[in-house]
Amino acid sequence: MRAVKAIVLLSGGLDSTVVAARARADGYALLALSVDYGQRHRVELERAAAVARALGADRHVTLKLDLAAFGGSALTDATLAVPKSGVAPGIPVTYVPARNTVMLGLALAFAEAEAARDIWIGVNALDYSGYPDCRPEFIAAFEALANLATKVGVEGAHFTIHTPLIAMTKADIVREGIALGAPLALTWSCYDPQAGHPCGECDSCRLRAKGFAEAGIADPAL
Amino acid sequence: MRAVKAIVLLSGGLDSTVVAARARADGYALLALSVDYGQRHRVELERAAAVARALGADRHVTLKLDLAAFGGSALTDATLAVPKSGVAPGIPVTYVPARNTVMLGLALAFAEAEAARDIWIGVNALDYSGYPDCRPEFIAAFEALANLATKVGVEGAHFTIHTPLIAMTKADIVREGIALGAPLALTWSCYDPQAGHPCGECDSCRLRAKGFAEAGIADPAL
Repeated sequence: MRAVKAIVLLSGGLDSTVVAARARADGYALLALSVDYGQRHRVELERAAAVARALGADRHVTLKLDLAAFGGSALTDATLAVPKSGVAPGIPVTYVPARNTVMLGLALAFAEAEAARDIWIGVNALDYSGYPDCRPEFIAAFEALANLATKVGVEGAHFTIHTPLIAMTKADIVREGIALGAPLALTWSCYDPQAGHPCGECDSCRLRAKGFAEAGIADPAL
Repeated sequence: MRAVKAIVLLSGGLDSTVVAARARADGYALLALSVDYGQRHRVELERAAAVARALGADRHVTLKLDLAAFGGSALTDATLAVPKSGVAPGIPVTYVPARNTVMLGLALAFAEAEAARDIWIGVNALDYSGYPDCRPEFIAAFEALANLATKVGVEGAHFTIHTPLIAMTKADIVREGIALGAPLALTWSCYDPQAGHPCGECDSCRLRAKGFAEAGIADPAL
């Protein structure tokens, strides 16, 4: 029997790598999707390719999409500084406008073209940066949309958006990754690489370090 | 007073051109968005640029996005034939998987980056090809999603998806375009151009011809 296909949004970071490993462990055939959206931390795209290979993905598509043309985020606009003084309340300047709406829309297109019904995404609403499009109510709204938006939805199929990390702490995610044998050494989290090294000070570096520290595990990528 | 900004999804076809003219007539400053998604009827992108100029758009962004990488549509896959035998029941092979979900996601990103709250799209659920993502229930679901998905939505702003054509016949759309002085001569509808000319036989050509015929107006683009 052929395995059921799953689209996995794979950024090359810790969370999406654990999600991909979870989908693989659950028996899905992986169709990994990365988006080259003009992010300044482009090294994550190389790491995504390495993770896809390590997990035996059937396919890995890296779509180019120039979200930097719109501006408005420190992740795509080199003139805006990435904050380094700690995770602050509110939605930070690293927020990319409508990013997960766009990412899930692309994943849905890939799913429909591949006759897949399962989309996996590593959003997390607990130890996160306060992005609105990481919340359970956003995911539920997107799942409802997916079933109205598509030919197969109209014909009675049902899309499921899987978010296994949504209620986990970063320490839980680290432990889950270790338990699954996920290739955590290949992952990249830093928003603002300095000469190929993580900066250690951006929100993403801080959240990652906190997760490994609380799990009592050394970060294999450092 | 500066005009309120509107994002207008502009394909270069009849419908989106009439929508853009309607938004302009309603006093909005136009920010036009076209997507180069690998469509075989690429001439429409040149027409979109001409329409944006003719309507005095403040900005026109053409985003490249290689949806052809996913396959599955006659509009992006040269190995699939565009049907020529008339508009048939059901969803046709020219359907691009999840296209309007992706397009509206990109429009939402553009809107949020530009601090716009109004998105205009020329979907039509009457004289159309049966695409699921042209229906009012899809648009309502996307509007709900937009307000959950975004920083400004969380902060209390409200996005509106304007669909002035959704209940019109093609003849109504032609009459509306004429009444608005929309640059209909610049528009392009054909899915399968033959040596720079519309094929006259694809669904899009047939629906356009029916609209002009029923309105009793000669098509200025022919």
